[in-house]
Amino acid sequence: MSDAVIAEVERNVQWCLAARPDGEVGPEHFQVRTAVRPEPGPGEVLVRNLYLLVPPAMRLWMNARDSYVPAQPLGEVMMGITLGVVAASRDPALPVGSYVNGMGGCQQWFVAPAAQLMRVTPAPGIPLAAYRSVLDVQGLTAWCGLTEICRPQAGETLVVTAAAGSVGSLVCQFGKKLGLKVVGIAGGPEKCDWLTRECGIDAAIDYRAEDVGARLDALCPEGIDAVFENVGGPVMDAVLERINDRARIALCGMVSSYNGTGTQRAEALMQLVVKAARMEGFLVRDYFDRHAEVVARLEPWVADGSLKYRIEVLDGMENLVEAMRRVFHGRNQGIQLLRLSDEVPA
Amino acid sequence: MSDAVIAEVERNVQWCLAARPDGEVGPEHFQVRTAVRPEPGPGEVLVRNLYLLVPPAMRLWMNARDSYVPAQPLGEVMMGITLGVVAASRDPALPVGSYVNGMGGCQQWFVAPAAQLMRVTPAPGIPLAAYRSVLDVQGLTAWCGLTEICRPQAGETLVVTAAAGSVGSLVCQFGKKLGLKVVGIAGGPEKCDWLTRECGIDAAIDYRAEDVGARLDALCPEGIDAVFENVGGPVMDAVLERINDRARIALCGMVSSYNGTGTQRAEALMQLVVKAARMEGFLVRDYFDRHAEVVARLEPWVADGSLKYRIEVLDGMENLVEAMRRVFHGRNQGIQLLRLSDEVPA
Repeated sequence: MSDAVIAEVERNVQWCLAARPDGEVGPEHFQVRTAVRPEPGPGEVLVRNLYLLVPPAMRLWMNARDSYVPAQPLGEVMMGITLGVVAASRDPALPVGSYVNGMGGCQQWFVAPAAQLMRVTPAPGIPLAAYRSVLDVQGLTAWCGLTEICRPQAGETLVVTAAAGSVGSLVCQFGKKLGLKVVGIAGGPEKCDWLTRECGIDAAIDYRAEDVGARLDALCPEGIDAVFENVGGPVMDAVLERINDRARIALCGMVSSYNGTGTQRAEALMQLVVKAARMEGFLVRDYFDRHAEVVARLEPWVADGSLKYRIEVLDGMENLVEAMRRVFHGRNQGIQLLRLSDEVPA
Repeated sequence: MSDAVIAEVERNVQWCLAARPDGEVGPEHFQVRTAVRPEPGPGEVLVRNLYLLVPPAMRLWMNARDSYVPAQPLGEVMMGITLGVVAASRDPALPVGSYVNGMGGCQQWFVAPAAQLMRVTPAPGIPLAAYRSVLDVQGLTAWCGLTEICRPQAGETLVVTAAAGSVGSLVCQFGKKLGLKVVGIAGGPEKCDWLTRECGIDAAIDYRAEDVGARLDALCPEGIDAVFENVGGPVMDAVLERINDRARIALCGMVSSYNGTGTQRAEALMQLVVKAARMEGFLVRDYFDRHAEVVARLEPWVADGSLKYRIEVLDGMENLVEAMRRVFHGRNQGIQLLRLSDEVPA
């Protein structure tokens, strides 16, 4: 159906995957389609998307190969992690006006069974966007990855890569709350300053300007006991070269591999043998049953300001490619969201 | 002291590290020195080395960097894992004629405190060399790595790299004894034949002649649950690309990295995240306290012939470089030993 014949009030603008990127993502990989706004069936709700989260893994979903989710099909609405507001409801559990988290896709509106959505009830003083970022997947990923995979003991040394990132910055602060020495690796002096001054970690290394290996030697003469790894590539090699016996490496992501390139030095991985160390991947979905418990733990820290986080909002789906590129290249200054509607509350 | 002035009966020919190889090891990296045979002090014994074990890791020890043992110092007798016979004793616990395992070095004779040596008492029908191979480090590495790191359940699929190697071939057979489906990867049709016909594994892949990924797809349509990894490099990448959720990879060694080169594809390692899988290095020294228990478990299998193993013996220390090269390139047909004395019993 052409744009012209759908009335403005019935339109649902959708961003669909038109082609799989071979390397960097660009506007040519998306097709914008105008569909008719769907109607909810029994037990379903119509949701207006307010925020779209743009995590680094979004680039991964575009590849032909299945990742932790099936590969995004060509020609279909791009998958997207959204926070929205119920605009029409056929399930009394989610009345109109409820805020909900869901996989709402890169579009203005979607319909889903109420049971597939998670209701969000903002606490006083906490902005809505926090519930699709620090008080959601990022917080759960950071807390569970650090405590369940790294299993750090007070006094140990933790190194975090992509330390100023949406997950990394939380891991850094949780590390401090758990009594660890925390060294973060991030790109650029502004991020490093923020980590040491605001987030209170022991030291930050600017991988763009500094020799990561030499700085780690200087900052961690006692070696590295735990690693929270988001990046891969040469930075991960440099960290692995300095692990202690029985170190634990939580592998949360390897952004440097998401465009299909990237290698690791086998000699650095050999340190896993030499140090009898453990590298373990994990998926936040394995911890979803702990969502309420972890959010309840983090919410007071967000409310009282003791847990620092930054959200960077770009306006409109037309910034999707720009947002993905910012995240992929680490140019974002916080958790990257797109605001999809001006109905977002102040 | 020059060769000429040391009487034949007092000589101790020693192979010392003269230079660190940058890539392949050669005769130019060793210097042969003739020293005077040492005398045991109180509590010490003089040992005549009978066998030298030549494991792949020996190449690793020659690098400047410490590995799981401190780097071999230049100019000193090359470290060596030996089995010998006590020739003079000043400790009643080890009388003359006792067989002992120790770090005797690449030399004819050595002196050590009796407490640092492990006495070997061959059972009837088991050759002496088995006690410095299958019934020692190799058996312990294979058994503990498989059971403690891979923790396989009956019915699961295990892939073993360097499967015809000294450790790999034992892992393969232990896997079958534990009720697993076992696929081995080895170099050359002879090794593959031996694995399937003699060792009884389900299938073997010749990485030199076959497309490892395609063969794994065909042989393991149900995916891979556990991996015992000895090699690294592209074969490891191909295996990682096919792991199942919560797979366990025991990282025993990465021979392909020992000469300082070699890379892994980051995208293959990313499978650890996507599958929430665990890759864990281990060192046999962490299991030495189980040596007696494990040897007692394996000894009957060696005696009754149900555990297949191959030992390849070269005669004389002058074959050290050749033996190391054979092991490094997988040209050996079994656990590689050098026989250092014609006093070895039949």
